[in-house]
Amino acid sequence: MSTIIFNHQPRIVGWYSVAGKKESQGPLGETFSRIVEDEYFGGKTHEVAERRLFVTAIQGAIQVAGIQPDLVFAGDLLNQIVSSSFAMRDIGLPYVGIYGACSTMALSLINAAAYVDAGLVQSAVAAAGSHFATAERQYRTPLEFGNQRPPSSQWTVTGAGATVLSASKESKIAVTCATIGRVVDFGIKDVNNMGACMAPAAADTLERHFANTHTQPADYDAIFSGDLGQIGEEALRDLLKERGYDLGQKYYDCGKLIYAEEQKVDMGGSGCGCSAVTLNGFILDKFKRGDYHKVLFMATGALLSPTTCFQGESIPGVANAVVIEEVTE
Amino acid sequence: MSTIIFNHQPRIVGWYSVAGKKESQGPLGETFSRIVEDEYFGGKTHEVAERRLFVTAIQGAIQVAGIQPDLVFAGDLLNQIVSSSFAMRDIGLPYVGIYGACSTMALSLINAAAYVDAGLVQSAVAAAGSHFATAERQYRTPLEFGNQRPPSSQWTVTGAGATVLSASKESKIAVTCATIGRVVDFGIKDVNNMGACMAPAAADTLERHFANTHTQPADYDAIFSGDLGQIGEEALRDLLKERGYDLGQKYYDCGKLIYAEEQKVDMGGSGCGCSAVTLNGFILDKFKRGDYHKVLFMATGALLSPTTCFQGESIPGVANAVVIEEVTE
Repeated sequence: MSTIIFNHQPRIVGWYSVAGKKESQGPLGETFSRIVEDEYFGGKTHEVAERRLFVTAIQGAIQVAGIQPDLVFAGDLLNQIVSSSFAMRDIGLPYVGIYGACSTMALSLINAAAYVDAGLVQSAVAAAGSHFATAERQYRTPLEFGNQRPPSSQWTVTGAGATVLSASKESKIAVTCATIGRVVDFGIKDVNNMGACMAPAAADTLERHFANTHTQPADYDAIFSGDLGQIGEEALRDLLKERGYDLGQKYYDCGKLIYAEEQKVDMGGSGCGCSAVTLNGFILDKFKRGDYHKVLFMATGALLSPTTCFQGESIPGVANAVVIEEVTE
Repeated sequence: MSTIIFNHQPRIVGWYSVAGKKESQGPLGETFSRIVEDEYFGGKTHEVAERRLFVTAIQGAIQVAGIQPDLVFAGDLLNQIVSSSFAMRDIGLPYVGIYGACSTMALSLINAAAYVDAGLVQSAVAAAGSHFATAERQYRTPLEFGNQRPPSSQWTVTGAGATVLSASKESKIAVTCATIGRVVDFGIKDVNNMGACMAPAAADTLERHFANTHTQPADYDAIFSGDLGQIGEEALRDLLKERGYDLGQKYYDCGKLIYAEEQKVDMGGSGCGCSAVTLNGFILDKFKRGDYHKVLFMATGALLSPTTCFQGESIPGVANAVVIEEVTE
């Protein structure tokens, strides 16, 4: 069984997104709960800023939900997921560190849903985030280096998002099922083309999801991928067409939604924060307003480290999909 | 509720450990399923070797269990947990990446138990591992540098372990409850004294565990910590004594068990692999032989990255505890 059914339909009772200045200037700017214009968020380093984004998102979501959760699932892109771990010093709740690269928002949401669905906890938080400057420093070169960006590159989103799930039935927005990703490697080695690395994994997850749930793309009000960007989105459409699924007009990539073309982000946004702030802003707000009733949210991750790239390894991808829908009871 | 009860008592139906040459020469040498004397495991780099340890442990445990699991939970110490992720290319199963530093074996076991307990999957694998040379390269200096080790340091275990959990009742060894750790920071900044960084978190988790489950140390046949080492073990005993719990003679640290004193490992073993190979060898074998009926297995992690240390941050710790016991039905 590669698609998991949450029979008790854990409810989404709160969400919060915090994003940076560049993100606030994009098409989704109005949908974020909070904007932090200072890229240091009042701290000494960009790493401290990233950590503060996590604390802000998690505390914000908890406040919106108005309940005290039992457990937090969180992850980020930094080595040893230190943004999540260090943020948890301030949160003080039991914590499970999750790593799914840029698929982390979906993966943490699935895990939080699993624990709530099982009745192991009453309530849990799922969170993910990223920061442009910390990702550049770690994966590529520090900003001071003034590196040139090839046109296939993507722009790491500065932002974090958090979702609170609860066993209580006070909300109609539920997490109903999920398809956890397999690691898929098509042998691509271009670190500046993440979309191409992740698209095969996205196709694998979506194909399994549609087959297991006996659904078609048309059964969803919208399908979101996390941060495939322009190249990855096109590759995913092609790969799925070969397998008999037409993603059609209701498929969107968060990485393409989040910035405007004139913002010079090449193929679009990326990073854990990309899908995290889009989910915990634009997408869940649409549920609240009644525009969406059933959405397939799939975040994608490229499973590389600078060491694996230096050692000549290819870049495998993973994609985790979760269904969010309005339920009646 | 900070201790989770697994009412359906997921069963441990298979386990496997693979360890390196140095580990094979220690007191637990006979308990490992397989020894790999070549530190490169036939690969070009130590990183490839670490990945192969994961594949070996996971495939080994699956073979012992004789069932095809639905899902794998795994994590390691390398940046972006690439050992787990890359190993999953060969395993081909859906995969949740877990990061709990050296507490990962307990954390992956808890998550696998949660999914099986919930009926979300029929069977799941939990895995963790580490390699001395990859950890030295990443956290300290490459071996070629010939760095001197301060006496408070610990020796990263080369090895990986995997456990298969199942909803079927064919085994009497079950995972019955777990206490997930909070991030605890006592402000220690010495990267060569991991035991001191982790002991406060271990004390926090054990105290909560004993209180929530209304148990005492004497209620367990044995209590294991993951890799506190000599300093951490003493600190944990002291911290718990202050809180009214005497760990007594049945408390052991995997980091102290795994090497003999003449092996020159300073304060003892460490790394994800330390508790992983001890659990999936020595500890579970004792259950099989009927020597153990109820064990508290707590793995501890230090949540640092070289970047956080360079930036002057302290080193928070986390500890995850899980109860393994023989059940009657």
